[in-house]
Amino acid sequence: MMAAQATVSSERLWESLMAMAEIGRTPAGGVRRLALSDEDRRARDLFVHWLQDAGCTVRVDDLGNIYGRRAGAEPGAGPVVCGSHLDTVPTGGRFDGALGVLGALEVVRAMNDASLVTRRPVEVVCWTNEEGARFAPAMLASGVVCGQLTIDAAYGSRDSAGRSFGEELTRIGYRGEAEHRLQAPVAYVELHVEQGPILERAGAQIGIVEGVEGIAWGWIDVVGQAAHAGPTPMEDRLDALVAASRAVLAIRTMAKELPGVRTTVGRCDVSPNTINVVPGAVRLSTDLRARDAAALQAAAQRLQDVCTAIGAQDGVEVRASEFWRSPPTPFAAMVVDAVADTAHSLRYTTRRLWAGAGHDAKYVADRFPAGMIFVPSAGGLSHNEAEWTPKEDCGRGGAVLLGTVLRLTASA
Amino acid sequence: MMAAQATVSSERLWESLMAMAEIGRTPAGGVRRLALSDEDRRARDLFVHWLQDAGCTVRVDDLGNIYGRRAGAEPGAGPVVCGSHLDTVPTGGRFDGALGVLGALEVVRAMNDASLVTRRPVEVVCWTNEEGARFAPAMLASGVVCGQLTIDAAYGSRDSAGRSFGEELTRIGYRGEAEHRLQAPVAYVELHVEQGPILERAGAQIGIVEGVEGIAWGWIDVVGQAAHAGPTPMEDRLDALVAASRAVLAIRTMAKELPGVRTTVGRCDVSPNTINVVPGAVRLSTDLRARDAAALQAAAQRLQDVCTAIGAQDGVEVRASEFWRSPPTPFAAMVVDAVADTAHSLRYTTRRLWAGAGHDAKYVADRFPAGMIFVPSAGGLSHNEAEWTPKEDCGRGGAVLLGTVLRLTASA
Repeated sequence: MMAAQATVSSERLWESLMAMAEIGRTPAGGVRRLALSDEDRRARDLFVHWLQDAGCTVRVDDLGNIYGRRAGAEPGAGPVVCGSHLDTVPTGGRFDGALGVLGALEVVRAMNDASLVTRRPVEVVCWTNEEGARFAPAMLASGVVCGQLTIDAAYGSRDSAGRSFGEELTRIGYRGEAEHRLQAPVAYVELHVEQGPILERAGAQIGIVEGVEGIAWGWIDVVGQAAHAGPTPMEDRLDALVAASRAVLAIRTMAKELPGVRTTVGRCDVSPNTINVVPGAVRLSTDLRARDAAALQAAAQRLQDVCTAIGAQDGVEVRASEFWRSPPTPFAAMVVDAVADTAHSLRYTTRRLWAGAGHDAKYVADRFPAGMIFVPSAGGLSHNEAEWTPKEDCGRGGAVLLGTVLRLTASA
Repeated sequence: MMAAQATVSSERLWESLMAMAEIGRTPAGGVRRLALSDEDRRARDLFVHWLQDAGCTVRVDDLGNIYGRRAGAEPGAGPVVCGSHLDTVPTGGRFDGALGVLGALEVVRAMNDASLVTRRPVEVVCWTNEEGARFAPAMLASGVVCGQLTIDAAYGSRDSAGRSFGEELTRIGYRGEAEHRLQAPVAYVELHVEQGPILERAGAQIGIVEGVEGIAWGWIDVVGQAAHAGPTPMEDRLDALVAASRAVLAIRTMAKELPGVRTTVGRCDVSPNTINVVPGAVRLSTDLRARDAAALQAAAQRLQDVCTAIGAQDGVEVRASEFWRSPPTPFAAMVVDAVADTAHSLRYTTRRLWAGAGHDAKYVADRFPAGMIFVPSAGGLSHNEAEWTPKEDCGRGGAVLLGTVLRLTASA
């Protein structure tokens, strides 16, 4: 082991990021690389080429997840795995996902430069369809690999044009073998951009991620009565949008009253949605997040109470129904500590935080020791063509990933 | 003149209404008869057939408006005109429009039964595309005839499939001659269902309509900033839907504070409208109505003030822009009095009210003496397949229309 001698090249990592960002590049400088599209295939082909160039053994599983393995010294030892995803949202940026995949590749390249021999194998992974922008749900492939979703559900998921995940996976030539799936890692580490403003605002260079917040998704269905806006007196109306607006504001207020809870109403679909008709029905979406399971449950209960109260006040039906809940997931202390120790030894400024968004690391953490490293997102912007993380921040993230992997392959 | 002897047949009027309702009948018992559709053509063909059977001279103008003329005794005397429309909204009812057209036909039939000779000619009119459901704007053909819209704008109006009003008018064979347009009526009377609950609630059999309320239509554009619902702290959000919800509630409150004003937000379009993204932009529609021009203006001003205040409170852009205003239109005293005198002489219970919805009578009233007669709508329901007005109410409406036309042809 000669860990001290391996060094990440910020320059090489940046060049790889920018070369990858050419695939699916948008006129505004962002990236459109939907899962299993032709752009995704070209990105995969380039990544596989780079893995092979770096001496990795490449395998593809039945979900299209790509693994590049750098052998270790100890026969039969479980690998340390690091990676992320290469798909993007329709108008995405250059860093979300790609930084974690190419950062992991840079770790292997840096080890090669130093002719480093690790005790355990090191694997670089690229997960399929993390974003869920084309095929629902998000984190589809890691979900199957980690036992949260069935392979049939994955293959049967269809995009808006009716094409299935299974067909498209075959079409782009990345349908591999089930026996190639993730093999009992001793640890998994994912480098990612924060996608929020916390690190930038705190002046921290590295985010030590302690876990992934719990998420509860649901609908609120408001049913009033559609009526002609002209002849219908105000006192006769059962206006679903008025009641829905009360719900939006009450849900916003909840986040002030319940510490550690964030609430979002992102969708609002009105029926019939016509200028001269009093709205008869509205569906709102609800997104509740908290790092504490009890807080999440309290928010879900408050949501029910709010809906009951508004329904009674306005004389309309207001029904909240939760359709998905992902519990809060703390990361393994072993991995979190390795990240923290590495960052501190490199004298980077750090901040501990929880991931508010979903990541493949969440599903992996359900089964194996896992953790994440965040680097700042300028202005907190993400899922946006203007997404930006400077070269130096990417390099620091790569350096912490390298150090963390080296600690884990030595000690885990 | 032997006015006393002409009598409307409720039975015959009802049979005509039900026969017409077969054309475009929906499974739920409503009517789908969009303007210039094949259903509209069949309805027109039947109507023309009935007019000819009743001895009327039929002409069609360049907007497809159909006029059936029953001659009067005095050479060159201006006609008394009555009618409405045969087109419906996509899921409309059996009475909206059809009652006014077939009620006017029944007036002619009743006069024929009594061999009545009137001083002035009596014309029955069917206006094209009153609803505006297929071709915007509503009341397109009466708007052109009464000088509020150009013929080019009418012909160029396109449906959602891209077909133009002009092409479709030719296709169904109802593009007539410009010289056949409405010819200087001494009075216009339109029988219509109320489309609201006022008459039913008041226990009134006949509504004496004093005018058409003013309408102001506009948009409210809210621009915040889209952000990922996961990693974005609550205090960093510029949530356009939260601000829009405040606007919906403030606009509802306006109607309580400004006497005689009704307000509706019927549309709400959210961008990007995704469950896990804080809304970046929202467009709301606004519909303000009042019978008093000053009250309508006060409401429009209040709308601006409300938007300014919400924008300042939430730190987002909130911009209200009015794109159409139709001023309040009082009906001619001569016509209103003739309706009232007739209803009272028939000993019907009455209530005076203003029309909250647009009608062809509004445009006609801009140029000629005009008025309307309302009959009750069960439950106030309209633009709905369950729209209902009992046979007796239809008959009473027809009787008041007959009496009003006779008064006007004698005295006007």
